[in-house]
Amino acid sequence: MTRLFNDPAAFADEMTQGFADAASRWVQRIPGGVVRSTRSEDQQVALVIGGGSGHYPAFGGLVGPGIAHGAAMGNLFASPSAHQVYSVAKAADQGRGVLLSYGNYAGDVLHFTQAQDRLNAEGHDVRTVLVTDDIWSAPRERIDQRRGIAGDLAVFKVAGAAAEAGYDLDGVERVARLANARTRSFGVAFSGCTLPGADAPLFEVPEGRMAVGLGIHGEPGIDEVDIPTAAGLAEMFVTKLLEELPDGVSLGGARVVPILNGLGSVKYEELFVVYRTVHRLLAERGAVVVEPEVGELCTSFDMAGCSLTLLWLDEELETLWTAPADTPGYRKGSVAPQRHVEVHVDAADEEQPIGPASDESRALGRAIADGLDAVAGALDDAADDLGRMDQVAGDGDHGIGMQRGSRAARDAAHRAVDGGAGARTVLAHAAEAWSDKAGGTSGAIWAEILRTVGEALGDESTADAAAVATGVTAAKDAVMAFGKAKVGDKTMVDAMVPFADALAAAVAGGRGLADAWDRATTGAEGAAQGTADLVATLGRARSHGEKSIGTPDPGAVSFALVCRTIHRTLG
Amino acid sequence: MTRLFNDPAAFADEMTQGFADAASRWVQRIPGGVVRSTRSEDQQVALVIGGGSGHYPAFGGLVGPGIAHGAAMGNLFASPSAHQVYSVAKAADQGRGVLLSYGNYAGDVLHFTQAQDRLNAEGHDVRTVLVTDDIWSAPRERIDQRRGIAGDLAVFKVAGAAAEAGYDLDGVERVARLANARTRSFGVAFSGCTLPGADAPLFEVPEGRMAVGLGIHGEPGIDEVDIPTAAGLAEMFVTKLLEELPDGVSLGGARVVPILNGLGSVKYEELFVVYRTVHRLLAERGAVVVEPEVGELCTSFDMAGCSLTLLWLDEELETLWTAPADTPGYRKGSVAPQRHVEVHVDAADEEQPIGPASDESRALGRAIADGLDAVAGALDDAADDLGRMDQVAGDGDHGIGMQRGSRAARDAAHRAVDGGAGARTVLAHAAEAWSDKAGGTSGAIWAEILRTVGEALGDESTADAAAVATGVTAAKDAVMAFGKAKVGDKTMVDAMVPFADALAAAVAGGRGLADAWDRATTGAEGAAQGTADLVATLGRARSHGEKSIGTPDPGAVSFALVCRTIHRTLG
Repeated sequence: MTRLFNDPAAFADEMTQGFADAASRWVQRIPGGVVRSTRSEDQQVALVIGGGSGHYPAFGGLVGPGIAHGAAMGNLFASPSAHQVYSVAKAADQGRGVLLSYGNYAGDVLHFTQAQDRLNAEGHDVRTVLVTDDIWSAPRERIDQRRGIAGDLAVFKVAGAAAEAGYDLDGVERVARLANARTRSFGVAFSGCTLPGADAPLFEVPEGRMAVGLGIHGEPGIDEVDIPTAAGLAEMFVTKLLEELPDGVSLGGARVVPILNGLGSVKYEELFVVYRTVHRLLAERGAVVVEPEVGELCTSFDMAGCSLTLLWLDEELETLWTAPADTPGYRKGSVAPQRHVEVHVDAADEEQPIGPASDESRALGRAIADGLDAVAGALDDAADDLGRMDQVAGDGDHGIGMQRGSRAARDAAHRAVDGGAGARTVLAHAAEAWSDKAGGTSGAIWAEILRTVGEALGDESTADAAAVATGVTAAKDAVMAFGKAKVGDKTMVDAMVPFADALAAAVAGGRGLADAWDRATTGAEGAAQGTADLVATLGRARSHGEKSIGTPDPGAVSFALVCRTIHRTLG
Repeated sequence: MTRLFNDPAAFADEMTQGFADAASRWVQRIPGGVVRSTRSEDQQVALVIGGGSGHYPAFGGLVGPGIAHGAAMGNLFASPSAHQVYSVAKAADQGRGVLLSYGNYAGDVLHFTQAQDRLNAEGHDVRTVLVTDDIWSAPRERIDQRRGIAGDLAVFKVAGAAAEAGYDLDGVERVARLANARTRSFGVAFSGCTLPGADAPLFEVPEGRMAVGLGIHGEPGIDEVDIPTAAGLAEMFVTKLLEELPDGVSLGGARVVPILNGLGSVKYEELFVVYRTVHRLLAERGAVVVEPEVGELCTSFDMAGCSLTLLWLDEELETLWTAPADTPGYRKGSVAPQRHVEVHVDAADEEQPIGPASDESRALGRAIADGLDAVAGALDDAADDLGRMDQVAGDGDHGIGMQRGSRAARDAAHRAVDGGAGARTVLAHAAEAWSDKAGGTSGAIWAEILRTVGEALGDESTADAAAVATGVTAAKDAVMAFGKAKVGDKTMVDAMVPFADALAAAVAGGRGLADAWDRATTGAEGAAQGTADLVATLGRARSHGEKSIGTPDPGAVSFALVCRTIHRTLG
């Protein structure tokens, strides 16, 4: 929803002013919208675009060298008035004529046409190319009645580049018409946006469902389905768009620009996951991808939705699509000459070797891998609880981090065991995997623990309780040096120090490993309980509105849990 | 929330792949993240950045000429592992050394430091500059313990431009440290993001409230307040950030880069409304704004929040900040030489003159303006109902459009009356204002109606019932020609045609204007009821899951409402 506004009635005006303030390198505000604040040496045909506001960077954000010369900016989701279009087009005209281009909506057509009539009557040469890319808004037989959505960018970019290249008005109009004829889009939505000051979204889609073909202002879609996977959505997009190739395009070797557009709150990471499959499918079908775009290029406030546009190139369109552009919301072009390089990464950096090992150490390695099975299982079960505890003072990812790390460590350990590794190597592989997959502080620390214990165990000797205790003490020292935490800082160290000390003392006192481990774990659990109590207290305080940046992290809790789990496998 | 994914556990990996596919002009994927896929002629110091994923364009999106040479990309919200950082930094090193720069989080510090130690041991010259811009994460006395948030961009951009300019490692490190020392950020949030596959957001902020100082992963904020206005938020940002000027900066004449960053679902339009006040306040306090950025530069999936960063320039930092850059997520630089121009719009285009008028026509103009008072009041009351009706088949803006248009028409009419206008001119001014402020189809049509009726009334003659009927008939013809709608198309024409015909017939039959208008209105109301019934039926069908792209718009309903309102003023 839209949360930040002053008087909702003044929103469009204030937004336009803030935009012009922020983007004065490119645009200047005039009555009705914005025009370029820069001028190139040669006079150009002026491309004037426009439409309702709420679709940034469409439309004002696309004004600048290489794309538009002006944008008529209407009120929120409302076409600009004829007067606004007239004012902007008149100011933008450099004497070589004006191309008006905009999405095909009744209100826009009325106002732009009125403006065009008035400008033509005053002697300006003004033409129009409507954008009609939305395949769901009318069947192919009535293709010129389709709405314009994110395909706007394809048409504007091509027309703007042609103007920049010095084309005359006939030429700019011709390539804009060609680009529109070769552009198709397909959009979906999950929820609607709420306009400033409104108390409900423009439309709603049931939880877990997806509206197919829904317009960027909430115009009804054609169907409603369960939300597919990212790959499923990519397949739906590509399959449907390839069913409707423009005239003159055949798939084998066709060059195509995919524009995967987010409407507002389907974010970049999700779009990249979808794009991964789009890219693969297009290649599989024989198309060659040229300079794709994945991002927010035609939005609808914070509407949750996205669309795929395909612009099918010919040689001229490719030159125009790949030409530089420099606007507030869309920039393209090289800083200085660069050459393409392939970086080769030495594969040897990527794998740790498995060296020789004694049979006893191999058996111990296998036992360690089995122990990691149990640890990963226990952390799976505890992940949600650990995550909730971490939310009180941290970012809530401790549970998922421990889960990812222990799973990866388990898998790497078993692979190393299968490769004949001894205890040290099994733990080294597990350590690397834990660190790699978990990331974060806990990933680094657990990797350090596994690696250090492994060093004490070696790949050759028969490890005994004393070697384990030595390894654990060394790991404790390494962790304290590494993270610079002391007992009482409410970190994992609070549990690890009593654990390591008690283990060493019990082993030195002649106890067997399982017994010593049990006693040491009981000490760690005491410390963990202290942390858990503190977290619970802080959590209650926060839910009553108190705020503090506290330090307790659930590292002690997960540490004690791991120790207890290992104890069970020592049986 | 994150809706589009396949296996949540594979999300970060698939996201990185999709990103690399989409951005192959700039980056190449290697183990651990991405490095540039291009090389400039001269060898450069390599800037390697990184952190958890989920913050696009941070961090992979900032790799390319002018900014970073590589980015270590961790799992979602988790630092990259030491191994990942090592792999990326090693591949990025061109032999002139590596600067590691990243936000100050414990996990990142651990892993980047481990990687740095290993690279240094292998003979690479590697240094580190941490970003610590978040003023709320630690007090000024412990400034080096602060977290890094959107100020990342300021530091990376400066360091990357220095590397591009050929600075040696000492020089790149120096300006990065200087940029960090001169960068301050302040963030707020309204709601948290939900990670792929998670069933709840990372944190929640109560409805209508705003968390102050909250971190980009949901780390606790310092306070919670009611959501202010956009201007109030701007004031909060600027006031606080100006309380903490970096050493060596004094306000008068200081040059500053504001970066107003959206975290995911606070969208561009809202940001521009906030920026308008930021810009004004900075100017009022004596600061000179240089190349600001307003957009999504460091996100947190679809978290609703934003932050303001101020980078205080000196001459060297300004040169580096304004230098070109060309990366997937941040591009800057001119296409071809452009010169700045000021566009002057002729004020005469903007105002319609008020010509001479008879006293009778002036009195009629005043009555018309009073009638528009009543119309605007009635449309205020009906706006929500009309909006809901329009949502069934359209984009839901009919109510707000009629409201905006009639208010503007009313105000313009009164201004014209005060200027001594007759009936024709009052209606012409009202028409222009309605069209300008309402936009959309209905704005264009109502402007046509008012203008056409005005032509029939003139500024000189005493208007009688016959003149009104003639004007209404002419308006009906104009609207039909204009919008190409016929009776039965379920538009305003359904009500307007019977109204105009009945009015003309009743006036021709000798009835007075009020009586004739009453009869004609009754006919329009019948047509409006038909539209309302159809809309209600379609609305029920849609709520049962049926979808259709229908044409009924509530134009007939609002037309009948306006007619009835005017009838009451004819009394």
